Amino acid sequence: MTQMHRITLARRPQGMPVPEDFALEADDMPVPGDGEVLVAVTHLSLDPYMRGRMDDVKSYAPSVGLGEVMTGQGVGRVLASNSKGFAEGDLVTGITGWSSHAVLKAGELRKLDEALPPSTALGVLGMPGFTAWAGLNSFADLKAGETLVVGAATGPVGSMVGQIAKARGLRTIAIAGGPEKCALARDTFGFDAAIDHRAHQDARSLRAAITEAAPDGVDVYWENVGGKLLHATLPLMNVHGRIVVCGTIAWYGGVDTGGPDHLPAVWRQVLVKRLRVSGMIIFDHWADFPAFLAEMTPKVAKGEIAYLEDVAQGLENAPAAFIAMLQGGNTGKQIVAL
Amino acid sequence: MTQMHRITLARRPQGMPVPEDFALEADDMPVPGDGEVLVAVTHLSLDPYMRGRMDDVKSYAPSVGLGEVMTGQGVGRVLASNSKGFAEGDLVTGITGWSSHAVLKAGELRKLDEALPPSTALGVLGMPGFTAWAGLNSFADLKAGETLVVGAATGPVGSMVGQIAKARGLRTIAIAGGPEKCALARDTFGFDAAIDHRAHQDARSLRAAITEAAPDGVDVYWENVGGKLLHATLPLMNVHGRIVVCGTIAWYGGVDTGGPDHLPAVWRQVLVKRLRVSGMIIFDHWADFPAFLAEMTPKVAKGEIAYLEDVAQGLENAPAAFIAMLQGGNTGKQIVAL
Repeated sequence: MTQMHRITLARRPQGMPVPEDFALEADDMPVPGDGEVLVAVTHLSLDPYMRGRMDDVKSYAPSVGLGEVMTGQGVGRVLASNSKGFAEGDLVTGITGWSSHAVLKAGELRKLDEALPPSTALGVLGMPGFTAWAGLNSFADLKAGETLVVGAATGPVGSMVGQIAKARGLRTIAIAGGPEKCALARDTFGFDAAIDHRAHQDARSLRAAITEAAPDGVDVYWENVGGKLLHATLPLMNVHGRIVVCGTIAWYGGVDTGGPDHLPAVWRQVLVKRLRVSGMIIFDHWADFPAFLAEMTPKVAKGEIAYLEDVAQGLENAPAAFIAMLQGGNTGKQIVAL
Repeated sequence: MTQMHRITLARRPQGMPVPEDFALEADDMPVPGDGEVLVAVTHLSLDPYMRGRMDDVKSYAPSVGLGEVMTGQGVGRVLASNSKGFAEGDLVTGITGWSSHAVLKAGELRKLDEALPPSTALGVLGMPGFTAWAGLNSFADLKAGETLVVGAATGPVGSMVGQIAKARGLRTIAIAGGPEKCALARDTFGFDAAIDHRAHQDARSLRAAITEAAPDGVDVYWENVGGKLLHATLPLMNVHGRIVVCGTIAWYGGVDTGGPDHLPAVWRQVLVKRLRVSGMIIFDHWADFPAFLAEMTPKVAKGEIAYLEDVAQGLENAPAAFIAMLQGGNTGKQIVAL
């Protein structure tokens, strides 16, 4: 094995990415230097935040340069180690990028528990699960008896948001695309109600459905989505409600800035309902990651936390799986198995 | 004196109110019942929130009914009392409405310190001053060395926001309409910089001026205004900035909901900057009012807190003064002296 493969950013997408925005490249197998570790990637994570990294705009993290490897977290086995901390065969995770192999410094890798499926480190016990846990703990002020609404509810963040909130005594309402996902939300993730946003053409119709599912109003809205779901939910917020802005996937593929201007109405809702809107990015919270793992790893191991994965096969299929995910084609956490 | 006068809501305004939306009525002098007090109003407060009460929409407080007296706080002298707590001649304040005289229950009145000008109970030591104090304490998390931006900065809320923030070591930037108000903001209220929004046609131009005045970015934006100032300031917010949404006077007179839709860009700023946006209404904070008075009354008495009042003469001139205030015609706290 003298070659490695990687997916690079071939050009910047206009709106929704297309396959031609990516390139599959081969290169010589990298050699780890002093204190470095060579990892053979077995599982790669695909996440919505990567869409933002493809744009050349100033954001909370650097964008991927043209011709550079697409960023992302992977899980794999150590092939060669020049660090005392790691030995050949260790199961590890780190920011490998969309690559078959990666050389990382020992400090950039974390050893994984062999007792759990390796891919859990990318989803339920990785960044998405941690995002849900940290965001709810830091910003949502959950109280038993309250009602929570979350979109993309069978995804790895939404499904964890729902399960944590449910465990704390909230009424949980899932918004998902299609009857199959709604059934999963109820049956697998335990949501009290699930609403198919595709069955509602506009915010008004979706709002009527949420109103029926949330007879006491909405206290916590976890924002994964933006767009129609935000417009539907906001007028249902109770006084002193909380909104955690974690993602706006409905707006990722380029935003139609035609009218009407929704901002005045949203600002008015924030004012009259005394809402608290908190933007969150998980990178602010890594100090709490050990506490998250300590709390949630046993629950996942015992099957008390459900999770779903969609697995695409082969690095070469990562772009198509990524594009499908941005269009809502996945059901659970999107993984690429190499 | 057997008659009283009041201003009632004659019809609901379309956008900016006009004089015909109000009516001046005469009525028999009311007689206080058991436990009630008759007050002769000497000073009446005009506040932007009253515009919202003129609309027949569900909000945080009931709207004024057609033909009903306009709501509002007044200061006056007790003319007759059927309560042990009050004696003729006492200086008091309460929700008198836009009236020459009002009968209130003893529990709805508060006695005032005769050592201070009566009108201070409506502004610097009343709801506006308290709004600034409570909002900053509850939501703004002020830290010395940070930068604060506030619009309507010579108004009774904005000027107190600036003075409190300045006293806590922040760099304070006033946005006000016209060079006279800007000079007042700097010279009377101690803002570090003042920007005339009328000199800037669009948000981009205003943003350039704020950028110059805030070389380290903006940590706290006190939202009195909405519209152009919000669009100008939001991109300048620092990571983990705080926005206190207290009013949106730019949008009070009816909102043009033409495009573009600013919401996606605002939501993205909230996300990537991890902003905290808190809606506030002072009615949630009354429990802290004694603490506010205890802290700020001595400062006002010693002249450590500056305040400005615009005084209109005569109840019949209240509508015109109110309309002028909504259009930015006032400089300080708008009072009507009866």
